[in-house]
Amino acid sequence: MTTTSLVSTPFLSAHDVATIVQRKGLDACLRGMVDTIQADFLRWEAFDKCARVASHSTDGVIELMPIADDLSYAFKYVNGHPKNNALHGLPTVMAFGVLASVATGVPELLSELTLTTAIRTAATSVVAARVLARPNSRSMALIGNGAQSEFQALAFHHLMGIEEVRLFDTDPLATAKLADNLRSTGLKVVICTSTAQAVRGADIVTTVTADKTNATILTPDMIEPGMHINGVGGDCPGKTELHPDVLRAASVFVEYEPQTRIEGDLQQLPADFAVTELWQVLNGSAVGRTSEAQITVFDSVGFAMEDYSALRFMRDTARELGLGQRLALIPDLADPKDLYSLVRPTASRFVAPVSLPDTQAA
Amino acid sequence: MTTTSLVSTPFLSAHDVATIVQRKGLDACLRGMVDTIQADFLRWEAFDKCARVASHSTDGVIELMPIADDLSYAFKYVNGHPKNNALHGLPTVMAFGVLASVATGVPELLSELTLTTAIRTAATSVVAARVLARPNSRSMALIGNGAQSEFQALAFHHLMGIEEVRLFDTDPLATAKLADNLRSTGLKVVICTSTAQAVRGADIVTTVTADKTNATILTPDMIEPGMHINGVGGDCPGKTELHPDVLRAASVFVEYEPQTRIEGDLQQLPADFAVTELWQVLNGSAVGRTSEAQITVFDSVGFAMEDYSALRFMRDTARELGLGQRLALIPDLADPKDLYSLVRPTASRFVAPVSLPDTQAA
Repeated sequence: MTTTSLVSTPFLSAHDVATIVQRKGLDACLRGMVDTIQADFLRWEAFDKCARVASHSTDGVIELMPIADDLSYAFKYVNGHPKNNALHGLPTVMAFGVLASVATGVPELLSELTLTTAIRTAATSVVAARVLARPNSRSMALIGNGAQSEFQALAFHHLMGIEEVRLFDTDPLATAKLADNLRSTGLKVVICTSTAQAVRGADIVTTVTADKTNATILTPDMIEPGMHINGVGGDCPGKTELHPDVLRAASVFVEYEPQTRIEGDLQQLPADFAVTELWQVLNGSAVGRTSEAQITVFDSVGFAMEDYSALRFMRDTARELGLGQRLALIPDLADPKDLYSLVRPTASRFVAPVSLPDTQAA
Repeated sequence: MTTTSLVSTPFLSAHDVATIVQRKGLDACLRGMVDTIQADFLRWEAFDKCARVASHSTDGVIELMPIADDLSYAFKYVNGHPKNNALHGLPTVMAFGVLASVATGVPELLSELTLTTAIRTAATSVVAARVLARPNSRSMALIGNGAQSEFQALAFHHLMGIEEVRLFDTDPLATAKLADNLRSTGLKVVICTSTAQAVRGADIVTTVTADKTNATILTPDMIEPGMHINGVGGDCPGKTELHPDVLRAASVFVEYEPQTRIEGDLQQLPADFAVTELWQVLNGSAVGRTSEAQITVFDSVGFAMEDYSALRFMRDTARELGLGQRLALIPDLADPKDLYSLVRPTASRFVAPVSLPDTQAA
């Protein structure tokens, strides 16, 4: 009779990741995430990529986002349910994910990704803005003041030199919450009463709204020469934020073109509308901003590679800080062909908590 | 300052599921799984279905298998690495999965699915054999004596009246392990020295081999009138078990045609080779076996709906037995728009393990 033990998978709970961010500091986490995402974008062609797999329902969407390189496979589970706040007191976006070994299929990390996604999305926005926004950008409009907005504001403050944020949300309580959270961060906060007011004079415009509708948050009349638009909330079929003429007036940059054509604000334009993939700008094979007056749009939808980067960053940081738990997600078998040993009746009927010597096995 | 707590996701570890099977009995678990899978096949059109998403590498494959009905979304992570036993002492197949609410996206169960998959696969084989094999079947050849073989043998013994199993594997140690595990189960076990010897005279032939090659385990000369072939191991592009002429000589039944055309033994035949989906036989809209002499093949690859059924069954059984744990996979926020509250520096710098009263918050 074989004895069976259970191998364990490292697990980072929502509490563990909050502790990581508190101990290391959000600033340092954003910086580390920017570096990890940038490094992975620079080896773009090493990844086996596909558009995410979405399951749409009346009230929202549930998506799986897989990706792999030669060593590691990663996937994220993420939902988007815009009515969750109002109807259920729940976040609109919740996520978790896994890193696994390509060589064996063994899961090597299970982690919360709700908090992590907010950090990786803001970090990705910075990776793009560093090559697309004017280097002297100092003010940012922030349209949509929900769960992700603090992370966007602080990422641009710490890593792009943004000194002033101009806030607008259709929910004034969300704006008040954001303004309150940004007190004592060094950011100058201006509360605005309309999108147009918030956008006026801003160097960068970040849209991070949640409605699953073809909304028109930004219209052409609001756009000024030289603006960089960081469009984060248009990320699902039927969920857009930018008037199509805003895209037409701009140079448009995307993460992974096949996915953004389906999910991004780009879904409003014909399939031959030219866009540039961000990795090409980062490695110098395509140009980003070419003039002070150029209008640039990062039509961000969130790509699986960024979650791969985020999982790696959180795994490494958890190891450094000695945080995390272990789960028996996968059985560990003395003889891997003997899965049945886990449930053999002799083990249950005659062996309760401890193993019997071989002679007593039936 | 909002206080944050962490909502918890029910979790069934490999140990929990082994305990469920030991307490309830494998027989009862197989029976319950057959009933659940059959019930879900009978409401086939209620499911939003897609072929699984596979990431292939040199040594194996990692797959995600999502599915949803109006109420629940489920997905399974599963690998297939045929060399894992020999190279790493690991199982060739490992799995876990999640049930989630379609209405909110909240994950409602995370469970191991390695052991569960073996049970659900055997249960699915029985669901098919009950309408495809001759009702008086008493002997079964079992080709491939690895991790899943005990579950196939015992499912057919308990639920189909199989009295004799005829075993063959290229690894004699695997056969010895299976024979040992089947002692005292009431099954007559015959150890054979070739596939041909095992198959001769058998009413049902189950193939459950692991090699990721276009193997030809069963050739036309081995097939006798009236046989039912339960083909379980040909489940991946480039991984087949049946000579194409075995399929041509038979009536072929599948789970979900678009997936089986890519992954099943069916991948060897042209796209217009006629097959019947199992759910149609179960609901009476198509015929199964039509004569004593007919040869039937269930070209099983494993479909996401069966994992949906398996997760439901394990969730309900765990509740009944009071088993399982809870994980903080998703943050629970007093204000769902205030994700930042989890990492607000005031919370970390001035509040260490316990919450401060509001007056002390910055």
